[in-house]
Amino acid sequence: MPESGQEEALIVFTPSGKRGSFPVGTPVLECARSLGVDVDSVCGGRGICGRCQILPSIGEFAKFGITSAPEHLSEPNDVEKRYDEKRGLKPNRRLGCNTKLLGDCVIDVPPDSQVHKQIVRKRAEVRDIELDPAIRLHYVEVEEPDMHNPTGDLERLLTALKDQWGLENLEDCDLHVLHGLQQALRKGKWQVTVAVHRGLRVTAIWPGFRDKVYGVAFDVGSTTIAGHLCELLSGEVVSSSGIMNPQIRFGEDLMSRVSYVMMNPGGDVEMTNAVREAINHLTNELVTEVDLTTDDVLNATFVGNPVMHHLLLGIDPIELGGAPFALATNSGMTLWASELDLDMHRNARVYVLPCIAGHVGADTAAVVLSESPHLSEEIVLVVDVGTNAEIVLGSKDRLLAASSPTGPAFEGAQISGGQRAAPGAIERVRVDPETLEPKFKVIGCDLWSTEDGFQEATESTGVTGICGSGIIEVIAEMFLAGIITTDGVIDGSMAAKSDRIQPDDRTFSYHVHAGEVTVTITQNDVRAIQLAKGALYAGAKLLMDKLEIENVDRIVLAGAFGSHIDTKYAMVLGMIPDCDLDKVSSAGNAAGTGARIALLNQTARDEIEQVVRNIEKIETAVEPKFQDHFVGAMAFPHKTDDFSKLSKTVTLPAPKVAAPDDGDGSGRKRRRRRG
Amino acid sequence: MPESGQEEALIVFTPSGKRGSFPVGTPVLECARSLGVDVDSVCGGRGICGRCQILPSIGEFAKFGITSAPEHLSEPNDVEKRYDEKRGLKPNRRLGCNTKLLGDCVIDVPPDSQVHKQIVRKRAEVRDIELDPAIRLHYVEVEEPDMHNPTGDLERLLTALKDQWGLENLEDCDLHVLHGLQQALRKGKWQVTVAVHRGLRVTAIWPGFRDKVYGVAFDVGSTTIAGHLCELLSGEVVSSSGIMNPQIRFGEDLMSRVSYVMMNPGGDVEMTNAVREAINHLTNELVTEVDLTTDDVLNATFVGNPVMHHLLLGIDPIELGGAPFALATNSGMTLWASELDLDMHRNARVYVLPCIAGHVGADTAAVVLSESPHLSEEIVLVVDVGTNAEIVLGSKDRLLAASSPTGPAFEGAQISGGQRAAPGAIERVRVDPETLEPKFKVIGCDLWSTEDGFQEATESTGVTGICGSGIIEVIAEMFLAGIITTDGVIDGSMAAKSDRIQPDDRTFSYHVHAGEVTVTITQNDVRAIQLAKGALYAGAKLLMDKLEIENVDRIVLAGAFGSHIDTKYAMVLGMIPDCDLDKVSSAGNAAGTGARIALLNQTARDEIEQVVRNIEKIETAVEPKFQDHFVGAMAFPHKTDDFSKLSKTVTLPAPKVAAPDDGDGSGRKRRRRRG
Repeated sequence: MPESGQEEALIVFTPSGKRGSFPVGTPVLECARSLGVDVDSVCGGRGICGRCQILPSIGEFAKFGITSAPEHLSEPNDVEKRYDEKRGLKPNRRLGCNTKLLGDCVIDVPPDSQVHKQIVRKRAEVRDIELDPAIRLHYVEVEEPDMHNPTGDLERLLTALKDQWGLENLEDCDLHVLHGLQQALRKGKWQVTVAVHRGLRVTAIWPGFRDKVYGVAFDVGSTTIAGHLCELLSGEVVSSSGIMNPQIRFGEDLMSRVSYVMMNPGGDVEMTNAVREAINHLTNELVTEVDLTTDDVLNATFVGNPVMHHLLLGIDPIELGGAPFALATNSGMTLWASELDLDMHRNARVYVLPCIAGHVGADTAAVVLSESPHLSEEIVLVVDVGTNAEIVLGSKDRLLAASSPTGPAFEGAQISGGQRAAPGAIERVRVDPETLEPKFKVIGCDLWSTEDGFQEATESTGVTGICGSGIIEVIAEMFLAGIITTDGVIDGSMAAKSDRIQPDDRTFSYHVHAGEVTVTITQNDVRAIQLAKGALYAGAKLLMDKLEIENVDRIVLAGAFGSHIDTKYAMVLGMIPDCDLDKVSSAGNAAGTGARIALLNQTARDEIEQVVRNIEKIETAVEPKFQDHFVGAMAFPHKTDDFSKLSKTVTLPAPKVAAPDDGDGSGRKRRRRRG
Repeated sequence: MPESGQEEALIVFTPSGKRGSFPVGTPVLECARSLGVDVDSVCGGRGICGRCQILPSIGEFAKFGITSAPEHLSEPNDVEKRYDEKRGLKPNRRLGCNTKLLGDCVIDVPPDSQVHKQIVRKRAEVRDIELDPAIRLHYVEVEEPDMHNPTGDLERLLTALKDQWGLENLEDCDLHVLHGLQQALRKGKWQVTVAVHRGLRVTAIWPGFRDKVYGVAFDVGSTTIAGHLCELLSGEVVSSSGIMNPQIRFGEDLMSRVSYVMMNPGGDVEMTNAVREAINHLTNELVTEVDLTTDDVLNATFVGNPVMHHLLLGIDPIELGGAPFALATNSGMTLWASELDLDMHRNARVYVLPCIAGHVGADTAAVVLSESPHLSEEIVLVVDVGTNAEIVLGSKDRLLAASSPTGPAFEGAQISGGQRAAPGAIERVRVDPETLEPKFKVIGCDLWSTEDGFQEATESTGVTGICGSGIIEVIAEMFLAGIITTDGVIDGSMAAKSDRIQPDDRTFSYHVHAGEVTVTITQNDVRAIQLAKGALYAGAKLLMDKLEIENVDRIVLAGAFGSHIDTKYAMVLGMIPDCDLDKVSSAGNAAGTGARIALLNQTARDEIEQVVRNIEKIETAVEPKFQDHFVGAMAFPHKTDDFSKLSKTVTLPAPKVAAPDDGDGSGRKRRRRRG
């Protein structure tokens, strides 16, 4: 507050529009702070970090009633000049901490100088991430010890953090910080940088100045573990990678892993060790790629389905294997990385997102965080397709969640010629409605099988089978071409039209490809897909019943599978309820994005816990109507005409590239490399 | 609150006098709770634990205006009868949880039924310990999981703790609890007992009912580590033991241990490991003695001087070895036992009391907690004599603390023939003022050396040297007999009177004992004691100056040494300021008692942290007046007459026995056994 009698000047900050009068000579950063303007600083105004850069606006500002002139700010001083020489200031920018107010001014705070920077996501329908990490760095100058006032070094550090950074609620520090505290203070000549977790606890200390700190967002899937290493103060993803989940050796799918525990006492410990080792391997890979060490990682977030969640935490998942499918906990957990034997900074904290119910995990919670149906005015259906399909339906008023037992058919399992997505797998199929001839694309090649050069381009991989998205497409195309009836029967009469249709036991099958591996779609394959899509549809329908709605406004397909299928075909097959196709989108690896949001924004953690508590959990197994819907959804839709029209207007999803936000690209890319 | 229209009865609880009206049929325990009457319960009113026993008072109670009749309470029901048969109720007692109010009643709550039981300490001048441990047990019945409402097992447990025990602030649980949670709930058929730390966090879970939980109070001395194993809900000490501090192999005294670290990189880690191993050894001994395991220990408290404190915590003590003697921290710390590699329940919490200053440790903080000068109306001087003397002076208005560099002379070091207190060491000496002949007692024998049978009784140990209290006595007695002048010179002219006085280089010495070991008091020995007692006195005087007082009202001598010297001799030598000898007392192992108070009463932890923050810390090294006082205090007092009078009225301290409260008996006993 200005003192009376002192000369004052008016300062207006843009874009916030916050304004106030301050005594001439007040540093701009100080003005910003006392007005609550969001200006970043790690060094606390000492001209070291360069994060408080501001852009003076020059000219007549009628709307503010002031003239903002260059001479209304102090000339660049030695500190600013040195910073500019060493690290470089952008044109016209000043350091807010070393620039003093001399007269009326309009000051723009560029986006990169704001603490709570927005990290823009590419998809228009989702909110940007506001940067607010759980770990913050603070550079402080600590008072030296004095025999006349013998306080502890820690207490003087905490006083400095309180005085210089307003950290009032600090509850001392981790024991390991205390181990290195005295040496760090002396080595840094009483100037140190500390990392503070959630504004409450000092978790690391380094001598001198430091302005980078890292965290990893992990998505622990049954098949793949993906990680994004982020610099927490900028939000930048500095490296991404994926690794196979080594638990696969204990069982391909979740239930066989739970069975393994039931059959093998101590099997849970084996699997816990396996997944933690894999995470450590992945962390090492992530940091090594950018010349860091695991010591640089101070925070991590984890998402995963309930069984992965429990095994990561070292909890026997046996209760998840049978009714009533009781979770050990449905709360989010903040732990030391060391409690999970994770190779990170020894005081690193990890946050594990909450599971929603016994079949609906922290991965689904992360999808909710990413897609934010709980903030939507529209009714949104979010479907994360994997071995089971997790389904979330609702809006800001009410949100429901359930898991549908789709089985693994959508992932290529239990399908003749089916395989996991990997180079050589058929992922796109078109069937000519006239000739019934198929053409296809395989993962790792952009050519159709009918195009010149396909043979050469796929020489190294060959055609190895058909993956989930390929199965969806071929069955939908077969249906659109009339090879499959609405009841799901491969129509033997079509054999007259093409020898692609062949008798097979007492049914018929459709021949896609001959070679080292023969890919044929059998009647059983069609049935498997019918069962899977029937379960998925029935789950969505059950939630729609609960919400008493006939239609949804928007559909989001999440997960690797969701991002690889053409949404049109999902609707052709009746996997999802009717919806304007423009309002059906693919969210990519939304679970991984949710993990990253929780990593970069601490309040998102509180938000998702609140949302998860309020979600209405529906257990399909005890809902009598689920079975009715399931039976009713086995057939294919009757609206063939509509879809043939749609197929002209809807384009295929763009090829996926390694984009950590809203894409599963990196995970997929790695999987291919490793596949 | 009673509902209108319902029949009500008046209930009065004694001794609290709390009263209220309740609907007929209300259980007495419920009445007590709603009136805030302190009645214990572990089972939550299920008639299992028997802790809520009450004693109905029968008769006319004019002062309360009611008649309390037997029929005003319900008849004993099956639950009470079963409890009485299985575990036995004391005569006339009832279970408060199963006794219902039928008419006006006076109910007495016996001391052993109160949660906040008082643990009576023997010394009249100290306060009793109010039982309020950091760990409490709660028996709960948890709702079973249900597919229609799929919450986590943990969340249903927390709900039960909230509903059945009013634990509103629980912040979930330790990860290891989560590991055993689901099994415990099912094994206990949804009835479990949980341990809650400070009302905030679940730290252990057991199937079924349990009503005992243990903790250990540790006093980590440079020489000895003592531990008292306590049952936390009764406050009972169930076993006590002591063990040598194995750090002795790195240096006899503190400064040589710090030097060891300076000379040997990694020496701090060696010493940290050594002390932790010894603590683990001691813990195992304590629990084994009473057929428990280390898993039963859920809480522990630690006190020790600053170097011991830092080494226990794994903090390099090097900064304590030189000015400005900066502590890493001067706050109390609550940690997991596992953070210190301690062998206890895997979620056990330890509390380390705060150090006061670089030379005044957590042991002194514990002495303050035990002796409570901060609550005293009188001005109290508390002196804990060891290698250094820790001095605390003041009252409830103001408290000061300092450490005086007495050196180890009081412990028998740097004295010819001096030794640590152990069997065979001379501990009592009398010098006949006429003949100048000495008589003495050694540790381990109750006979004077001049009595019949002394030779035989000491045959196994022999006379091995003289310990601290023996040195004090012999020098004081020599002074009282005129062998030593007020300047501290052994008077050569006395050689004419007895050949016990012999020339020795250019001075004289006094011969106490000849045998395998010869015990002679040399001029150097007298000088060493003069330096030590001068430093002690100067420290006390410095604090008296700061407080602007000439006299103290009361003096407490703490520590093993303080409990073995005759306070009279301390005053004869001028170790302590003048004070009415009736007001000089020995507190025994007050540091150990302070550790036990902090173990049994959680609010004592907050209390001592507050007191330590407010203590004025005086560093003698930077106080010019200290040197003046020191020089002035080298001589012996001139008041010989007063003391010869006193020696008739003051009796020796009673022999110490193994009493954990206010005595160092157990530690001493063990030391002897091991010595």
